[in-house]
Amino acid sequence: MLTPSAKALVPFVSVEQMMGLVHHIGLSRVLQELAACIEEDFRRWPHFDKTPRVASHSDVGVIELMPTSDGVHYGFKYVNGHPGNMRAGLQTVTAFGMLARVDNGYPVLLSEMTLLTAIRTAATSAMAARHLAPKGATTMAMIGNGAQSEFQCLAMQAVCGISHVRLYDIDPAATAKAARNLASSGLHVTACTSAQDAIEGAQIITTSTADKQYATILTDNMVGAGVHINAIGGDCPGKTELHPDILRRSSIFVEYPEQTRIEGEIQQLAPDHPVTELWQVITGAAAGRTDARQITLFDSVGFAIEDFSALRYVRDRIDGTTFFQPLDLLADPDDPRDLFGMLARAAL
Amino acid sequence: MLTPSAKALVPFVSVEQMMGLVHHIGLSRVLQELAACIEEDFRRWPHFDKTPRVASHSDVGVIELMPTSDGVHYGFKYVNGHPGNMRAGLQTVTAFGMLARVDNGYPVLLSEMTLLTAIRTAATSAMAARHLAPKGATTMAMIGNGAQSEFQCLAMQAVCGISHVRLYDIDPAATAKAARNLASSGLHVTACTSAQDAIEGAQIITTSTADKQYATILTDNMVGAGVHINAIGGDCPGKTELHPDILRRSSIFVEYPEQTRIEGEIQQLAPDHPVTELWQVITGAAAGRTDARQITLFDSVGFAIEDFSALRYVRDRIDGTTFFQPLDLLADPDDPRDLFGMLARAAL
Repeated sequence: MLTPSAKALVPFVSVEQMMGLVHHIGLSRVLQELAACIEEDFRRWPHFDKTPRVASHSDVGVIELMPTSDGVHYGFKYVNGHPGNMRAGLQTVTAFGMLARVDNGYPVLLSEMTLLTAIRTAATSAMAARHLAPKGATTMAMIGNGAQSEFQCLAMQAVCGISHVRLYDIDPAATAKAARNLASSGLHVTACTSAQDAIEGAQIITTSTADKQYATILTDNMVGAGVHINAIGGDCPGKTELHPDILRRSSIFVEYPEQTRIEGEIQQLAPDHPVTELWQVITGAAAGRTDARQITLFDSVGFAIEDFSALRYVRDRIDGTTFFQPLDLLADPDDPRDLFGMLARAAL
Repeated sequence: MLTPSAKALVPFVSVEQMMGLVHHIGLSRVLQELAACIEEDFRRWPHFDKTPRVASHSDVGVIELMPTSDGVHYGFKYVNGHPGNMRAGLQTVTAFGMLARVDNGYPVLLSEMTLLTAIRTAATSAMAARHLAPKGATTMAMIGNGAQSEFQCLAMQAVCGISHVRLYDIDPAATAKAARNLASSGLHVTACTSAQDAIEGAQIITTSTADKQYATILTDNMVGAGVHINAIGGDCPGKTELHPDILRRSSIFVEYPEQTRIEGEIQQLAPDHPVTELWQVITGAAAGRTDARQITLFDSVGFAIEDFSALRYVRDRIDGTTFFQPLDLLADPDDPRDLFGMLARAAL
């Protein structure tokens, strides 16, 4: 058999290589650099092709494709969400993604994104909190202590400088796991026994739970003035975490309204309920927090541009490292019209 | 570092492995078996989730995602189309795809699809021609002798029993290449110097050209009664091959009208021009060819279900072979909620 030419090879970052890359750079630095990348892309939001993700729903979960392009590169992510997977010892969310050149359509990166999605989601939350949370916030309540929780805590530490986290999950084992994982982080970690207890003294409240249903993690009377709520668990139709009365008291910030109105907390509100696009806060076109008593809510469902930012970050960061492998993904006949000849010669 | 568990590994079929698999089975047999798979899936067409492909257009080409699901498996293909690539020594079309389980969202196959798309397109054309071409057809005109052409000729031979092909391309070097590649196929091959010459005596006319523009490969006066036209080159907005007068004389068969009206030859006609869905011909719900003098036209743009058929065929056929490799694409922590712990332990 012939060896594939360089044109046929696409750099691939496996899970093991992604973990190696993150440790090589350092997780805190990755979170900071990625938050900066995402902010850079939010700043040029109008340049991107945007479309709500393409979702295929079933009784037990959802499979989604999330494409976008800035005119130079095209990226997409494959991601599933299956809350019942945990019981079978599987991840609720797995993902992989690709970056390609717009000018010739050739992929330039294929990457695992299960880990990368957790990191980019945390970086996005922290980037948003830097713009919306009350100044000098020191304490975050982390409600839902699953796979996303430690990344959220560390991103808020690395990007926003919080020093205390208060953990709560309906399963104490999940809280114990998160507390153990954060023990050497430099964060003061408090394990709490109720959501009410967790939000005591917190300026930032992050909710990240996985049930695919209308849940009420926070009720209206629990939420005091001036806090920033980072709601990341409600991310598909029929899945929310907050009582609608909280939403009505909050200034609501979203990624892409067309998608958030279908999938986010605001699916509980009227379709014309006013929301602000986060990118406009970043460019200064819209106001963010204007008042110390204001409740700000980032109703985050995850958007393709964040994955694009993450893929281009990884693409830049693997250069000159061993944290990728060439994958024989593309046919590359000597004569591009002679695909058949390539096949025929492979038999020799 | 820890070795990834079996749950984290996805079977990957590289270009080299796909070529190996095709030679192991034999290309004619692959074309026959895949045509049967595609026909099987067309027969259960209503079971599939269907959506027009998600296209990102630029001045020089298009990048598309083509998802579908039968409720048990979910498949999608990434594919680009860049007519200018050939001048840079690159493929006009490259592709890869994935098959996943709907019940847990885990991928079960990642595969090259540049070669596989060429094979499935030819198998689909031949499957359609078996239902629509005049009985006893012996001769096909093949207009456009690029990367797709040999596969078309061999599929019509393997599935429909044609014995003669008449080749024409505006570039004689392309015709010479195709003739050379088909020399040992058992087909009688005639190189022609015009489209008019090529269609002489042909009962099946296949057009497969790549220019991204309204072209007129066939004009009305060239096409006689009773032929079957297999038009596969017009496959995106602004790209067609046939004069509209031919369309008006033809009984038109399509894959998925919602997509074909945007991308196919029929974009030149009124949006309510009558067309027949091919799957209904296959199930017997609609008439196919009813008259020896009728011109039948398969206005093929390629649809996600054909890729799904191809992916499930490859998935079944690699079992017990060496034509795949395990890819560390998915994170698989011991405790699915402990993604962070998996990352932390990888540093040890």
